[in-house]
Amino acid sequence: MSWENKLLRIVRVANAHEIGTFVRLLSAISAVGGNVGDIALLNESTNQVVREITIFADDDKQLEIILDAIRKNRGTKLLDVRDEVLALHLKGKIAVRSRYPIDSIATLQKVYTPGVAEVCMKIAQDPALAHTYTSTCHLVAIVTDGTAVLGLGDIGPLAGMPVMEGKAMLMETLVGLSGVPILLNTKDPDEIIKVVAAIAPTFAAIQLEDISAPRCFRIEEELQKQLDIPVMHDDQHGTAVVATAVLTVACRKLKIQLDKAVIGQIGLGAAGNAIAKILMRITGNPVWGADLSEDALLRHEANGGKRADLKSIMANCDVVVSTTGVQGLIKPGMVRKGQVILALSNPRPEIEPEVALNHGAAFAADGKLVNNVLGFPGIFRGAVDTWSPRISDEMLLAASEAIANHTASDELAPNPLDRTLHQAVAHAVALKAIEQGLARAEYVPYIHE
Amino acid sequence: MSWENKLLRIVRVANAHEIGTFVRLLSAISAVGGNVGDIALLNESTNQVVREITIFADDDKQLEIILDAIRKNRGTKLLDVRDEVLALHLKGKIAVRSRYPIDSIATLQKVYTPGVAEVCMKIAQDPALAHTYTSTCHLVAIVTDGTAVLGLGDIGPLAGMPVMEGKAMLMETLVGLSGVPILLNTKDPDEIIKVVAAIAPTFAAIQLEDISAPRCFRIEEELQKQLDIPVMHDDQHGTAVVATAVLTVACRKLKIQLDKAVIGQIGLGAAGNAIAKILMRITGNPVWGADLSEDALLRHEANGGKRADLKSIMANCDVVVSTTGVQGLIKPGMVRKGQVILALSNPRPEIEPEVALNHGAAFAADGKLVNNVLGFPGIFRGAVDTWSPRISDEMLLAASEAIANHTASDELAPNPLDRTLHQAVAHAVALKAIEQGLARAEYVPYIHE
Repeated sequence: MSWENKLLRIVRVANAHEIGTFVRLLSAISAVGGNVGDIALLNESTNQVVREITIFADDDKQLEIILDAIRKNRGTKLLDVRDEVLALHLKGKIAVRSRYPIDSIATLQKVYTPGVAEVCMKIAQDPALAHTYTSTCHLVAIVTDGTAVLGLGDIGPLAGMPVMEGKAMLMETLVGLSGVPILLNTKDPDEIIKVVAAIAPTFAAIQLEDISAPRCFRIEEELQKQLDIPVMHDDQHGTAVVATAVLTVACRKLKIQLDKAVIGQIGLGAAGNAIAKILMRITGNPVWGADLSEDALLRHEANGGKRADLKSIMANCDVVVSTTGVQGLIKPGMVRKGQVILALSNPRPEIEPEVALNHGAAFAADGKLVNNVLGFPGIFRGAVDTWSPRISDEMLLAASEAIANHTASDELAPNPLDRTLHQAVAHAVALKAIEQGLARAEYVPYIHE
Repeated sequence: MSWENKLLRIVRVANAHEIGTFVRLLSAISAVGGNVGDIALLNESTNQVVREITIFADDDKQLEIILDAIRKNRGTKLLDVRDEVLALHLKGKIAVRSRYPIDSIATLQKVYTPGVAEVCMKIAQDPALAHTYTSTCHLVAIVTDGTAVLGLGDIGPLAGMPVMEGKAMLMETLVGLSGVPILLNTKDPDEIIKVVAAIAPTFAAIQLEDISAPRCFRIEEELQKQLDIPVMHDDQHGTAVVATAVLTVACRKLKIQLDKAVIGQIGLGAAGNAIAKILMRITGNPVWGADLSEDALLRHEANGGKRADLKSIMANCDVVVSTTGVQGLIKPGMVRKGQVILALSNPRPEIEPEVALNHGAAFAADGKLVNNVLGFPGIFRGAVDTWSPRISDEMLLAASEAIANHTASDELAPNPLDRTLHQAVAHAVALKAIEQGLARAEYVPYIHE
């Protein structure tokens, strides 16, 4: 089991300055199933050694057992337990900031009354100037109703806020856009459409996020029909772009031609439906699709897909992608030799990559590798920089290719914090928008400062 | 006429290095009615002197005449004309920022997947924790439909955006809150109420802004009824708080007892109605009110006010406040000796303060002095810091007193960029919320960093 899904705590301990105390402590933690990460030496004196130890626990109960073991270790004093994840979330992770200081009354009068009136009048006479003289050119709404947050399901919009803020942080950190979380206290698709359309003048683009299927399909489609700014449900298209990029990289490595492979998609929800669509678009062939919902299967068939089930897909497909939310759904015995498997459910995949590889898969990856953060920042930046009214399928394909091409030969996917990746994605998306005649503004390529 | 309402441009000129050129240039500008502000020496060589001159013009037409005069001046070369107001608005004045850098994969995994899931689950189990672990504790929506922007009227939400961004800048600069402009593309009060209520979970408070009367009254009232976070229409209550503070200062100086004075309010729109209400609350006496709208007069009477007209107010009242939007409405001959007059319409008042003083007024001020920026930042900070569900009349009065008490004895109002003012207002508002039992969080006084 990966430690990444465990609770992370940092404990500060003072060990008696005697041979054996530290080793005894580590053994005690290990004996109750705790894992140890970084260890830092803080202070050493004649009597004691103070260290900070990062520990991982399965859950709160096991955490208590580990802390007890530390407390009971002979020669050890537990000084402090720190939760860095919670600490980083205190008072939230984002802020709205002035782009420059208001350091004099003269500046105040230029950015606020009375100077601002001149800018208001200019925009009143030509509303397109709002794109030049206001933040509407870089504000991106990140909208959720909290119905499908991560793999956690319908936990409500407030509980989804840490994810929305994470996306907003990444928007700024990776491509300099201003993500604005918008939490909706309605789950009614018609209401959602109405509300988002009503606040849309504020934004350069709308990112829909963690909205459950099948509601997400109509919400996205209808909003895009009504608005002249890009509307993208990231759980669909962001995931599809990144999954396709990783498949492209895997097939290149394995010298598999994707358009000659039989491809299966297990789970046809928001992500699965979009992945199947983009793969059919690339290969020109129907993707085999499995889902428990008849509606989902009908939708897949309407998209040109082939109806199948879990067993037939595992038995017949060269490339399998799963997005079911069901941990361990794919049994090791189902894996076919040479198969390419992306098991994308979070926090736990349908089959652990190591297990799949041990049972004959030629390539296997999970949701930690296929992470949306590789895609959405550059996709939005490219669309916004060209002031495109929408994000076309071709722009998504361009993003996917850019991610694949940016993957080093010894990697399966790029480093998500590599700014040049996101610049490359943004540039590819922008050039495609220009090629398709979607650009409404002179394009200046984004360069990360 | 005040230069503050004029167009401001910065011109760069090269003057021949000969005695008389510079003076001739200034005379030429003056001769066509241009005003000169700051002058900076940029560069001096044997042949020429390069300077930047800030000039003020009434309008675009006069600006062209001034620039022509500069071009035609013997020995002068016009090098550049800069519009600093527009330059400061390029690409907008605000940005959403990450509160700390995401500088490693380890941090990424704490603020985004998978670490974020732990925080989401905590909030799902106890939604009140969102106030601790998300930015909902400091995000303040600044909502407009663009129907009453400054004194410019119904110019639409996009044209109102520079004002909303100005408010957001001030929120951060003065009290560290995160203002989020929300532009609505509907003017229907019921729709506005529905839309704002639907996005309210995102925010710690709602600031309604530049929404026309009488629609603004019901929108504010109904939203406050539905939501358990403060909803405040700044054009009403922010203006009332600041106007009352300035009146308090004036009356102290003049040794007038406000509750023994006859007070008149000319114009009973959003601001006027609120000013009359707060003054009746303070003095316990009816305020004389004038308006062209019968509905506004009926509302004023329902609030306990006395119906009057412009002439009777000017003839009978010791203290007069006007918020009509009509420049020059109060004729010099109407001013009574010893009268206190706040003529608050922007960009031009009902009577210029100097004119009122010259005709016998004991005190006169306009909208440049009575500026909302003195009030709203601290009011929201105090309400948000105590997690109050609303802003009570008593909290508004506390804010007004704090502003008055923070005014130096040789000033008529505090400096809007004085951070200690806003801290004092926030603190007074918070203490009143606690006293009234409205606080829902332990109060930690805001201190500007």
